[in-house]
Amino acid sequence: MKPSFSDRLASLRSARHSVLCVGLDPDLERIPASLRSSLTPEEAVSRFCRAIVEATADLAVAFKINFAFFEALGARGTDVMQEVLDVIPADVLTVADAKRGDIGNSATFYARSVFEGLGYDSITVSPYMGRDSVDPFMDRPGTCAFVLARTSNPGGKDFQQLILDGRPLYEHVAQQVAEWENESAGEAGLVVGATDPEDMRRLRDLLPSTPFLIPGVGAQGGSAEAVMRAAGAGPVLINSSRAILYASGGSNFAEAARRAAMATREELGA
Amino acid sequence: MKPSFSDRLASLRSARHSVLCVGLDPDLERIPASLRSSLTPEEAVSRFCRAIVEATADLAVAFKINFAFFEALGARGTDVMQEVLDVIPADVLTVADAKRGDIGNSATFYARSVFEGLGYDSITVSPYMGRDSVDPFMDRPGTCAFVLARTSNPGGKDFQQLILDGRPLYEHVAQQVAEWENESAGEAGLVVGATDPEDMRRLRDLLPSTPFLIPGVGAQGGSAEAVMRAAGAGPVLINSSRAILYASGGSNFAEAARRAAMATREELGA
Repeated sequence: MKPSFSDRLASLRSARHSVLCVGLDPDLERIPASLRSSLTPEEAVSRFCRAIVEATADLAVAFKINFAFFEALGARGTDVMQEVLDVIPADVLTVADAKRGDIGNSATFYARSVFEGLGYDSITVSPYMGRDSVDPFMDRPGTCAFVLARTSNPGGKDFQQLILDGRPLYEHVAQQVAEWENESAGEAGLVVGATDPEDMRRLRDLLPSTPFLIPGVGAQGGSAEAVMRAAGAGPVLINSSRAILYASGGSNFAEAARRAAMATREELGA
Repeated sequence: MKPSFSDRLASLRSARHSVLCVGLDPDLERIPASLRSSLTPEEAVSRFCRAIVEATADLAVAFKINFAFFEALGARGTDVMQEVLDVIPADVLTVADAKRGDIGNSATFYARSVFEGLGYDSITVSPYMGRDSVDPFMDRPGTCAFVLARTSNPGGKDFQQLILDGRPLYEHVAQQVAEWENESAGEAGLVVGATDPEDMRRLRDLLPSTPFLIPGVGAQGGSAEAVMRAAGAGPVLINSSRAILYASGGSNFAEAARRAAMATREELGA
């Protein structure tokens, strides 16, 4: 039987003493000039991401690939993404950060291209369109659908924190998704931003064994220690993107990324 | 000055007596066998969509392109989408049905690739992550961000209809988006499913001049007449996909699509 996403995450965590997820958000304007000057944009992004993966793969439990930055490359974007996926070791988990959310028919097509075409282990999904927009991402053994719950961006408060029946919308989402998961072959996780550890702790109390994908540590201001105290007793992937990718703007960017990844792993103290 | 999305829509509506938006959801399994047997999947989808566009472009105010079906083609998907976009006449509006919704930084990249890279006039956007996830799609003159409000899929009720302060969540979304639009250079519209004309009428009363993108007429069961009565006094794009695309499974599919598009336009009686 295929091991579950959570089981793979637990093994990686204990083998590597790590909960670090390295986020690949390759912004062409921030990629070292040494790469940009001699290569096409596509080659520069590919080379940059592959160097980051090679420098950090033994320190991380997962890589999260942000689709926006690959789509921005135009028609060659999918090839570049595939080149990056090809160098990620098979035992490390992958997250398609694509924020999908569409009616059942379209969701089925998206799920097929992400899980079968590209071979990802998990994906981020928006809950707004409800169950038939999430189900197709939850029906494969060994995979995980990370549903947006409480996000750390400024607009995260606009709707997610509206109160219904005495509880914020994101708690309704979290609980509903957990119920759907019970009837699914795959797993559901939640995206929970790092900026409010109190909200995170409440969600963790509610869902002790649900994987949380936690962005917002570092550049966005969340504290690693507070986040681990709030949610670290359960399965977590703690994402850091910019602090690792752009640790140095020079040609030593890969070594600098490795040092930053090591420091973040230490701070997380898993 | 660039005309606004709404102005272009109004001109098309009066010139063509039409509010029809043709949805391009090219499911390989439903494309006529005559195309599939002699062509690669990519060529079959490209040829099919271009034939549909050419057969219906003078009857429609817009074409809505569903990203899921093009992503499913893999690395060549973006090229195929571009081939289809290239045959849509410049005066007809285009909708990128991509349901984007991500933090500001990523949203900016998505907006750039959809509006500048691919040249769309509008896009569908999910509201769950709030203002900074919608703003980057609303800041270009002449374009429109269609924000998901009340969708017609079965899961549309799971969260959108939760009641806060005596009103459903989708009404909060609609009103909030209208406020954000006031501070934006581009326009905001709403996605409002056709299956509940009563909800639609309430939204129209609230927002008389906001463009509504209305899927769900035909295959999903909404009645054209009820929809026009509920929302047709304001700007509307009424989408039909499957009823037009798959009007015939034979080699006469394009003529059949034209007849179906004509019939739908008549029914809508704009």
